[in-house]
Amino acid sequence: MTVTQRLAALRALMKQRGIDAFLVSTSDPHCSEYVGDHFKCRKYLTGFTGSAGTALVTDSFAGLWTDGRYFIQAENELAGSGFTLMKMGQEGVPTIEAYILEHLKEGDTLGFDGRTITARYRDRLRNLLSDKQIRINPSLDLVGELWEDRPALSCEKAWELDTIYAGYPRSKKIAQMRKAMADRMADYLLLSSLEDICWLLNIRGNDVACTPVVLSYLVLSQSRVRLFIQEGAVDAELKESLRKDGVELLPYESIYEFVGHCPAGARYWLDYTSVNLTLRNAVCRDAVLLDRPNPTLLAKAMKNSIEVANMKKAHIKDGVAVTKFIFWLKNAVNASAEGGEKVTELSAARRLEEFRREGKNYLGPSFGSIIAYGPHAALAHYSATPESEAVLAPKGLVLTDTGGNYLEGSTDITRTIILGPVTEEIKKYFTLVLKGHLNLAAAKFLYGCNGQNLDCLARQPLWAVGEDFNHGTGHGVGYLLSVHEGPNGFRWKAVPERNDRCVFEEGMITSDEPGYYREGAFGIRHENLLVCRKAEKNENGQFMEFEPLTLVPFDLDGIDPALMNEEEKARLNAYHQTVYEKIAPHLNDAEKAWLKKATRAI
Amino acid sequence: MTVTQRLAALRALMKQRGIDAFLVSTSDPHCSEYVGDHFKCRKYLTGFTGSAGTALVTDSFAGLWTDGRYFIQAENELAGSGFTLMKMGQEGVPTIEAYILEHLKEGDTLGFDGRTITARYRDRLRNLLSDKQIRINPSLDLVGELWEDRPALSCEKAWELDTIYAGYPRSKKIAQMRKAMADRMADYLLLSSLEDICWLLNIRGNDVACTPVVLSYLVLSQSRVRLFIQEGAVDAELKESLRKDGVELLPYESIYEFVGHCPAGARYWLDYTSVNLTLRNAVCRDAVLLDRPNPTLLAKAMKNSIEVANMKKAHIKDGVAVTKFIFWLKNAVNASAEGGEKVTELSAARRLEEFRREGKNYLGPSFGSIIAYGPHAALAHYSATPESEAVLAPKGLVLTDTGGNYLEGSTDITRTIILGPVTEEIKKYFTLVLKGHLNLAAAKFLYGCNGQNLDCLARQPLWAVGEDFNHGTGHGVGYLLSVHEGPNGFRWKAVPERNDRCVFEEGMITSDEPGYYREGAFGIRHENLLVCRKAEKNENGQFMEFEPLTLVPFDLDGIDPALMNEEEKARLNAYHQTVYEKIAPHLNDAEKAWLKKATRAI
Repeated sequence: MTVTQRLAALRALMKQRGIDAFLVSTSDPHCSEYVGDHFKCRKYLTGFTGSAGTALVTDSFAGLWTDGRYFIQAENELAGSGFTLMKMGQEGVPTIEAYILEHLKEGDTLGFDGRTITARYRDRLRNLLSDKQIRINPSLDLVGELWEDRPALSCEKAWELDTIYAGYPRSKKIAQMRKAMADRMADYLLLSSLEDICWLLNIRGNDVACTPVVLSYLVLSQSRVRLFIQEGAVDAELKESLRKDGVELLPYESIYEFVGHCPAGARYWLDYTSVNLTLRNAVCRDAVLLDRPNPTLLAKAMKNSIEVANMKKAHIKDGVAVTKFIFWLKNAVNASAEGGEKVTELSAARRLEEFRREGKNYLGPSFGSIIAYGPHAALAHYSATPESEAVLAPKGLVLTDTGGNYLEGSTDITRTIILGPVTEEIKKYFTLVLKGHLNLAAAKFLYGCNGQNLDCLARQPLWAVGEDFNHGTGHGVGYLLSVHEGPNGFRWKAVPERNDRCVFEEGMITSDEPGYYREGAFGIRHENLLVCRKAEKNENGQFMEFEPLTLVPFDLDGIDPALMNEEEKARLNAYHQTVYEKIAPHLNDAEKAWLKKATRAI
Repeated sequence: MTVTQRLAALRALMKQRGIDAFLVSTSDPHCSEYVGDHFKCRKYLTGFTGSAGTALVTDSFAGLWTDGRYFIQAENELAGSGFTLMKMGQEGVPTIEAYILEHLKEGDTLGFDGRTITARYRDRLRNLLSDKQIRINPSLDLVGELWEDRPALSCEKAWELDTIYAGYPRSKKIAQMRKAMADRMADYLLLSSLEDICWLLNIRGNDVACTPVVLSYLVLSQSRVRLFIQEGAVDAELKESLRKDGVELLPYESIYEFVGHCPAGARYWLDYTSVNLTLRNAVCRDAVLLDRPNPTLLAKAMKNSIEVANMKKAHIKDGVAVTKFIFWLKNAVNASAEGGEKVTELSAARRLEEFRREGKNYLGPSFGSIIAYGPHAALAHYSATPESEAVLAPKGLVLTDTGGNYLEGSTDITRTIILGPVTEEIKKYFTLVLKGHLNLAAAKFLYGCNGQNLDCLARQPLWAVGEDFNHGTGHGVGYLLSVHEGPNGFRWKAVPERNDRCVFEEGMITSDEPGYYREGAFGIRHENLLVCRKAEKNENGQFMEFEPLTLVPFDLDGIDPALMNEEEKARLNAYHQTVYEKIAPHLNDAEKAWLKKATRAI
């Protein structure tokens, strides 16, 4: 079926079932940010391939709501599909909830698959729609019904992450969570977010591209650990290891029935922001529901000392790969202009992947790589395809936002690489973005600060000239889990659903990635991962600071030193010196000579 | 009676009335920050004269809770009084609520005067004490009962602030508030905060030192304006003027009875953070209470263009006075060392007041002046007395935090003046504080930012060296009302009761006053008032920026230029050039020559 046919088929099904509006989210039953192919209903229905967006279909309208990162991509992918692109946050564009409120009549029914929205969103929706008598049917997977060749549920093998990588054995983590439960007098903790479960049990898997998680649910009590997982995902060895720590295995889908039975008055801890609506509704009516952030959230974000030490190792390997890549890229693009093999966005990505694969314990990319040349770099989440990809030439700049998963943790790095002559204007913005990046990385601050307190350090150089970038400055990063992990982040505005406003704690890892984008022309972003650590404690309190994990030079060819003050230059020079010291020993002579120059003091 | 005798008398009264713990706040029935003498029960009871603090008395304990600004002063004033100083925010010091919860037994009764606590605090207290069966008696003014020579309620004449100063006539403001009421479907708006009432009616008075307000309450409906005010406070002329705008006068105390009667289901808008408990409890049971910030709050904070223009005029007059004062002070202190008249903290304050009085439309100080020499400057709210005051010598530095009320608005300025040789260390901190001050003042930012987003700009230079200052960076300033006015402010931590986290709007005036304090040695603070204004609007949004209102040089003798980068020097030089241009025309030749030097580019 074409997208147009799918839309018609959905409308027919809606009519049959008495549904006036049907909502299709991007999520899976675990409220994951990235989902397996089985769960890509919104992509199947609309043809839009971006990682965020929600579709709404009525008999006379079909809309796809997505955010600024995807406007241009969605415009292209939705052309001729029958879906209207609804640009979230733009003046005059209603939110999807406002649209529903305005266009549905009293007595109309809104349908969706309750497994793909969070319990919290349902509650928000109820409040928003309370002024109008709109019925809700949350038990319909209509897109699943019309999807003939739907991919099967992934059932990749789970594997154990050794304590030399995870730092703490699962028994210690389970004990820590049980203590948190006792503090809240919770009898059960229900986890459905895959990263939380994998972190707790020191397991990993391969059910979602780039995010090494295992489809599963978990219920913890003071005496038992119940893991709901597909039988085929666990081999005998892992089963035995889990058994030794008291982890019982139950069928994946049986979670819905399991939570339906519990002693009257049992206190069930479940985080409405990560538990899907159908699952919450399945919890036995006699239970008391405790809606609080999962205790795993903060524990997972505060990397232990072994995880931090491993992350540093991973970043040396990754730094070596990306440094070799940059050296190769500059030469290869120059050579291509003199008749050598041409370099494209996709071929460059493949070459970078090869460099990463030379690193020990490398498992694969930590997210879909972005290698965006020229105007493509102005699209914040550009993803090259054989049709769209550009050929790189020795001029202008290429933005590379990529990352790797190693047993020693995940990386996420953006470098904007100068391939040839660039204008003074590009240098200006390249430098302003770098100043912001360095200012934030150099922040020393009192314990208690969150990302809202510090974000302006990264934006100030751009704001000072009336410019900005339309995305958060940084997100938390997981340890061989999701590269977007809460609750830490850098963001000046409160975005409630992001939940990234927590106080910075020792061991939290956050990206620092300001940018500047000129549509149709170029894009710049500079990204390092920063680990938060304690600085001095004195009568003023506990000071905190960041240490960059990422070790790759920023391209000096893009910098206008006249725009940097002496402190900023000193910061850049100190960083580059560290890069050289840590990376050079792993390079060949030509690479080393180049790196020496690329990290020279300015 | 001595403080010890008062404490004994209070305990006897408590026993008589069956009260196990009695709480005495600093507030008046209008929840004012500064109060008239009639309402200074806490000061009467404890002997502590600071502007913030709460006393709690049981049969075996008497404590005074106050914040870091007052630790040293309170320690001195409470010595031998029987009151224990409870240093708020210090490790190991329980909050007053935690103390009550820990030390009162089930069935015990906590007493206080409900007119002196906010309805919001009562609700917070109820939540905090809900775990323990502690009774509350909110109808006891026990300190008032034992206070024989209690000053009478102030009844100074109210007067009208002409529209050439207020900008908008009261009719326009009333219409604006009625629109806000209609938007919330409120039938009545009850105002009890004096600044809100005075702002709304364009009246001023003299019932609180330095804060030109009138004791009053106000109830607004769509058809009527009822002002509850002492008869003696309104002369015939003002009465007639108010009458013309439909303002009816009722007896001040009759508010409690008035609010007890209203149509069933009437919607009463009253802000629990500014309405006292007794008054809220007096509102008729059939009313629906709407607890929301007063609509006056934001309207009052966003100074209109005439108010802003007036404020600029006030700051030229004030700048002239303070500049003349600094020139005089430096000379007078030098002369005193050579046998001239000695200069003390109090005599300097008197001289500054004389300079201010030379300005047209000057009404008096906007708060109790702080002139603190040497170690006194380390006390954030030092107030000199004939016993404590120091003699100024031509060495070290003196901190002057003072302000004036003019018909054209209020000023609040801190300058730290170098009287003679200072150490390199003092220069270092003098410069770091100034860097922070200038960085914040120079901020350009997107509309939507609040003080929490920007505060770190002021603290960064100190935080970078592991130092800090233990107070907010800035507070909103009223127009000939309170010098501490919400809802704007600069503060990195959320302090819910301060309510100063609002988004910066055009016309808001905020102080920018970082500092550095070394107990027993010296104190530094640099303060200008900044008005927020719009900068460019483009595809990124509306940019905002600040313009300094205050026009007085920062003492170049305290600056180590080696610690400032070129941007910071340029900012200081530009500011000083403006100071010279605006202030010099009002000076005599000697002063002018000195100012030229004092504002030279570095």
